[in-house]
Order: sequence, then structure tokens, then C-alpha cells
Amino acid sequence: MQFGLVLRHAREALNLSQEALAEQAGLHRTYIGQVERGERNISVDSMERLAQAVGMELWEMLHP
Amino acid sequence: MQFGLVLRHAREALNLSQEALAEQAGLHRTYIGQVERGERNISVDSMERLAQAVGMELWEMLHP
Repeated sequence: MQFGLVLRHAREALNLSQEALAEQAGLHRTYIGQVERGERNISVDSMERLAQAVGMELWEMLHP
Repeated sequence: MQFGLVLRHAREALNLSQEALAEQAGLHRTYIGQVERGERNISVDSMERLAQAVGMELWEMLHP
């Protein structure tokens, strides 16, 4: 899933740790790692929270 | 959630019933109705299946 890869790149570009991103998005750190590795079938609500936390639009994160 | 509205419009433009779309996407008809009304926190996998079933890209369905 490309969302996880884009999330990781965006997070690293902001110099955010998984912990910091998790805090901002109200999700668990281990969950962020799983999402970044494409191991989770993430919900649209969680994707929206993560997009907001890295300052991107969700559609933009899914755009090839 | 805008995904549900776009899905309904795309489905109606194709003259597909909720039943027919559900069949194509491998989901349940009542689930399609709930998604269209924004009552479900849908997963990215289900969104991808629905996007494919209506011949759209997921990012395009989420684009404002």
C-alpha cells in the first residue's frame, strides 16, 4: 500500500519520530510502524488524522 | 465524509444498483448503503475495491 510509504517519507521530512506523530494523531506508536510498513488495513478516519498530522491532504498522499 | 457521496454519484452514473456494486466489489449491499451515507469508517482496502468497481482511482474519489 503506497499510503504507508508516503506517510514515512512525510514524517521523516518533518523530522518527526513515530512517537511524536502518534501523539499528534492520537494513535499508538506501534500502529504507526505497522501502517508505514503496509501491515494494516487502515481506516479512512485514521488516514485523515495522519494526513492532517503531516500537513498533507489525504488525496495527495494517495496520488501516484 | 466525501467518499460516500462520490461513490453514490459514480454508482448512479453507471446505473448500478447497490446490489450490483456490492457484488462487483465483494462487499455486502447494506454495507454499501452505510458507506454512501458516511455511516462507516471504511478501510483503505474496501475503498480500493469500490473505486475499482466504479472505474475510478481512489485519490480521485477523495480529491475535493
